[in-house]
Amino acid sequence: MPTKTVLGIILSGRGSNMQAIVDAISAGRLANAKVGVIISDNPNANALTRIPASDIPRVCIERENFKDKASFEKALIKELRIHHVELVVLAGFMRILSAEFLNEFNGNVMNIHPSLLPAFSGLKAQEQTLNYGVKVSGCTVHFVDDGMDTGPVILQQAVPVLENDTVESLSERILHVEHILYPRAISLFCEGRLKVVNRKVQILEKPEK
Amino acid sequence: MPTKTVLGIILSGRGSNMQAIVDAISAGRLANAKVGVIISDNPNANALTRIPASDIPRVCIERENFKDKASFEKALIKELRIHHVELVVLAGFMRILSAEFLNEFNGNVMNIHPSLLPAFSGLKAQEQTLNYGVKVSGCTVHFVDDGMDTGPVILQQAVPVLENDTVESLSERILHVEHILYPRAISLFCEGRLKVVNRKVQILEKPEK
Repeated sequence: MPTKTVLGIILSGRGSNMQAIVDAISAGRLANAKVGVIISDNPNANALTRIPASDIPRVCIERENFKDKASFEKALIKELRIHHVELVVLAGFMRILSAEFLNEFNGNVMNIHPSLLPAFSGLKAQEQTLNYGVKVSGCTVHFVDDGMDTGPVILQQAVPVLENDTVESLSERILHVEHILYPRAISLFCEGRLKVVNRKVQILEKPEK
Repeated sequence: MPTKTVLGIILSGRGSNMQAIVDAISAGRLANAKVGVIISDNPNANALTRIPASDIPRVCIERENFKDKASFEKALIKELRIHHVELVVLAGFMRILSAEFLNEFNGNVMNIHPSLLPAFSGLKAQEQTLNYGVKVSGCTVHFVDDGMDTGPVILQQAVPVLENDTVESLSERILHVEHILYPRAISLFCEGRLKVVNRKVQILEKPEK
């Protein structure tokens, strides 16, 4: 039986991408992964109670309970280590992680962003998108580096921006694609088919030995 | 018989988009436009001899024959005026036009760029695209303002970036889409269906009275 890669999902919000990943695992579309732990930094997020039937460990680690970023991140790392996490999956986590945190996981930290990066990085991407007036947007799954949405791009998919789009309608259209793209990117990682060379992510036909 | 909008095409290079526009007019896909004049600033571009059977006036106006940018642009404007140009179409023209030039044509100046702007503006867009490592690129038709590829976006279309793409293979894939998108954008202009509001280009169902 092939071993499963252990994911640690970190979020701040409602957790729809977390839900999509859990669903993909349940449905067999992400059969080579399992979720070791779900961590939220927001006690008010309903993400931690979102999957009532699941036995996945859930933890809330609040930033305000720590004196600085370093000690907060140490607590995250400790929790991820307890559950033997191999790939850290950011799913609406609203903080920038330090280079020290990323090194702890050898850069095996992924994020999803609701634009075609490098366009419209940072907060409120959909609002930036509409204000600029582009006709095509999309979403990006990328490895995380210590910049703001600047890491190597794993997968992207375009979506149209429509004439009367609002932030809500565009966000919903992008989110639909996010929920397909993120499990697919994680699956490629679990199969050993992602290779980063000069900040470019090669998608291999077969894993390298 | 509906009147045709007179285009003035300005280029520096080989003129494949100029060719695509002329072909679209011949084929009836851009029936409400005619080309008044083709201007090149490069005497070595074969664009001016590219359409042997055509009776479209062609002119070479070289920058080095003028003492400054303003007098060069005056010569361009004079030539465009002689041919009653209503829409200036940049098709591989390698210079930034001044606000004065743009005002002469009430901002009715279009350009095409081989990326999904605002990503990868400026020179060598395809090389920038490959160096960043994105998985989706495309092309953009936009109205020109006095910035570098910053004007209001009219149409965009995405193309995939493939695993083993070179600058040449990616450029060719994008160019194929450019040749479809540029005539379509010009056609919308000629139909009076483009309306710029707060730097956003609305595509109207019907022209406004």
